[in-house]
Amino acid sequence: MDDLFGVAAVPASRFKARLARTLLADGDGFVTRDVPALAVTLEGVRGDRHAGHARPADSRVPWYPRGAPIRNCRQVSLVASDELARIAERLGLEEVRPEWLGANLVVEGIADFTRLPPGTRLHFPGGAALAVEGENAPCRHAGAAVADGAPDAGGRAGLDLAFVQAAKGLRGLVAWVEREGTLTAGDEISVRVPEQRLWRGAR
Amino acid sequence: MDDLFGVAAVPASRFKARLARTLLADGDGFVTRDVPALAVTLEGVRGDRHAGHARPADSRVPWYPRGAPIRNCRQVSLVASDELARIAERLGLEEVRPEWLGANLVVEGIADFTRLPPGTRLHFPGGAALAVEGENAPCRHAGAAVADGAPDAGGRAGLDLAFVQAAKGLRGLVAWVEREGTLTAGDEISVRVPEQRLWRGAR
Repeated sequence: MDDLFGVAAVPASRFKARLARTLLADGDGFVTRDVPALAVTLEGVRGDRHAGHARPADSRVPWYPRGAPIRNCRQVSLVASDELARIAERLGLEEVRPEWLGANLVVEGIADFTRLPPGTRLHFPGGAALAVEGENAPCRHAGAAVADGAPDAGGRAGLDLAFVQAAKGLRGLVAWVEREGTLTAGDEISVRVPEQRLWRGAR
Repeated sequence: MDDLFGVAAVPASRFKARLARTLLADGDGFVTRDVPALAVTLEGVRGDRHAGHARPADSRVPWYPRGAPIRNCRQVSLVASDELARIAERLGLEEVRPEWLGANLVVEGIADFTRLPPGTRLHFPGGAALAVEGENAPCRHAGAAVADGAPDAGGRAGLDLAFVQAAKGLRGLVAWVEREGTLTAGDEISVRVPEQRLWRGAR
């Protein structure tokens, strides 16, 4: 770690990872299902409930009027297998499945996946690319889906809130599509992490 | 600065700044001109040459085929008065004017403006909001515009390249529109800086 003018910095880096699974939210609800590949355009994942140039403002952005159209930076939900296993362990469950969380992509081979910096780009073999908006903060909605989905949860009371705590820093990322193309389960991903600095310029 | 699991972190912060000037690129070229206000939509600044959901890939993103449509995260160009003064000083010029650089917004009251982290949000009184993509890396194109514009440059040879060096970390930011509205010269800006962490999970 370098320190320039009091600003801690980590240089840009590039490395490879793997797209293990691709999933689509094309049903009534939040939950996704495995598909062999996803077609992505600048509006998001084709046929997915989160597609669109815009999305209505929700409780994640309480500074906007509820429902106001804002730019959709949450087109794609990504999780890492090892992080889901850690959430399951914390909750005393056998597993937490990506589809319960509405994940579109399951990624393998990236340490501390959920903390990848905003602006990180993921490039796929067919030319498609995603840009990382940031951590997908865990919510009770996803926690309730885990309580419903996990056979060993038995509808355990309070699991929705327990999930919010257990999944902090482990629930994956949201991203938008930077370039259209196809994301295929099994693809090698080329990851491009931008230079990182800690901004501390108060007033 | 906190250190969690070896990850350096700076907490989220909020503060006020000021929008000193608003400028529009509605002519033939790159250069902008002062206007009393800018109307922004999810496609960018209305009437500005950089508006659009998509933009053609250029030399800034050489990993994409030139001209391929990619998501436009560079809708708005922002500069800080004090940083432009520092560039001018380094180049031995009386001033570097925002319009020569094609800036849309001149911001005052933020230390180390160009290093504001990606994902920072700027909220304006009418409800409009911008999201910071990141540093606008200085290019020879802008350097040539300074050489043309500055009366004391006298078309100095090599000023385009000298600008690229002198303006590093000082040339401002690019941003996209998160919520539509109006940006008016003189507006107070509410700045929301996200939590920052340095990701170092190699592979």
